[in-house]
Amino acid sequence: MSVTTKATIASFGGKLLKLSHNAATTRCEMGFNLYLPPKADSQKVPVLIYLSGLTCTADNCSEKGFFQHAASKQGIAVLYPDTSPRGLNIEGEDDSYDFGSGAGFYVDATKAPYDKGYNMYSYITEELPKTVFAAFPQLDSSKVSITGHSMGGHGALTLFLRNPGKYLSVSAFAPICNPINCPWGQKAFKGYFGEDQEKWKEHDATELLKKWTDKDLNILIDVGTGDNFYKQGQLLPENLQAVASEKGFTNVKVNYQPDYDHSYYFMASFADDHVAHAAKAFGN
Amino acid sequence: MSVTTKATIASFGGKLLKLSHNAATTRCEMGFNLYLPPKADSQKVPVLIYLSGLTCTADNCSEKGFFQHAASKQGIAVLYPDTSPRGLNIEGEDDSYDFGSGAGFYVDATKAPYDKGYNMYSYITEELPKTVFAAFPQLDSSKVSITGHSMGGHGALTLFLRNPGKYLSVSAFAPICNPINCPWGQKAFKGYFGEDQEKWKEHDATELLKKWTDKDLNILIDVGTGDNFYKQGQLLPENLQAVASEKGFTNVKVNYQPDYDHSYYFMASFADDHVAHAAKAFGN
Repeated sequence: MSVTTKATIASFGGKLLKLSHNAATTRCEMGFNLYLPPKADSQKVPVLIYLSGLTCTADNCSEKGFFQHAASKQGIAVLYPDTSPRGLNIEGEDDSYDFGSGAGFYVDATKAPYDKGYNMYSYITEELPKTVFAAFPQLDSSKVSITGHSMGGHGALTLFLRNPGKYLSVSAFAPICNPINCPWGQKAFKGYFGEDQEKWKEHDATELLKKWTDKDLNILIDVGTGDNFYKQGQLLPENLQAVASEKGFTNVKVNYQPDYDHSYYFMASFADDHVAHAAKAFGN
Repeated sequence: MSVTTKATIASFGGKLLKLSHNAATTRCEMGFNLYLPPKADSQKVPVLIYLSGLTCTADNCSEKGFFQHAASKQGIAVLYPDTSPRGLNIEGEDDSYDFGSGAGFYVDATKAPYDKGYNMYSYITEELPKTVFAAFPQLDSSKVSITGHSMGGHGALTLFLRNPGKYLSVSAFAPICNPINCPWGQKAFKGYFGEDQEKWKEHDATELLKKWTDKDLNILIDVGTGDNFYKQGQLLPENLQAVASEKGFTNVKVNYQPDYDHSYYFMASFADDHVAHAAKAFGN
């Protein structure tokens, strides 16, 4: 459970910590970053978990996502986990950008050989927060929200929808909304779960939304209209939106942002809005 | 003079353009970026030139510096030039991170073989703005300011001090303030100018400040106290500050920012302040 501090970097009046720990769920050393706003010097602060997309580590969004800007002002800590186990020496794990290393898809794999360590669902929902709250008493474990980008948007939506009450709010940037119906999701779920499509549905935001009952559900989603992955049908926000509309979830809204692409230029442009969405849920 | 558009990226409500042109002064194709704020769609907007540090291209600050955040709100365009000519095939130009490629130091070299193209002073002060103002009539050529980081901070200070009236304001992040007295500057000036130290002084901000007479001089400088290059004596802001104090330039102020390092985490944290400094000079 002990956490090693690899770097402490001043950022927007607070501190970005580069950390690591030996994780039991993923059977390896996991790197992650934690941004502590200035307010954390004197008070407990809520935590926004940011889940990254394919190929990313904790560093990409820490450097390019601009979350620290608003998190500093709002007094919110930001937790940036990695996107998969690293260095498990599973054959083929480094062969694709969209499967294996850097592409854990926030699920617990049930199919060999990935069932030996590709447990990002348990890691993000249980082990990492337990570790972080033990190591950083200035974090308020009763106030946690979640967001993410692309594969990390899928992660944010599915972790929220699978765990009612665990997270106070959810939002996503260009999320993979319906993985059972897109190439990225199908490849990942086949590799991590095998052919059982009922199992796939348990980690599909659009399918999970079909079972949701609380009409007050509030989800902020931004997608750029210039996003090539959106155009290629990897994200399918329209499928999620259709279920939300059918069920009368009027606060599940996909904002189509003109011309924006899939990059951190897009994310950074709307980071303030997503931090504000979390802040509102925290009662800031 | 023609400009090629390589990419158009939506960013903070405006557009980041990745551009290139064939430059006569540097004898090669030069890449640069231009951020156009939303206001540029309907009105002429002022321009803030941002000069990058050692090893950087136009992309580093565009991705990590967060100038677009405030520039969008203030209605200011940001011009991000490259840091040297590229691919001139001069022997040794790619051997060091702090000399040659990526390290043009914003001077016109007088020593062979670098005098054949290492003319970043003329490029930044003359050719690039001429090219950009011809290609983008929505930019207001009467309102130009300059800023920069590290080697680019040296560039911003020296270009401002050598050209009274050309730039409406100047600021710098962790600038090399006294290059004739630090290893980076000595190596560069020896390589670009030879042994003539009087020539070196013409491109040294601290030396140039000694000759400045207008007491209204207003320079914003931020330096992190955790900056290893500051600690190693590469920046020497104390030498610039000493001249400013001696001459009674009360608005030349070095802000020592606790714990900040030399990275874009530092820059991003104070980008809003530096855009505001330029905006004030533009009469925004």
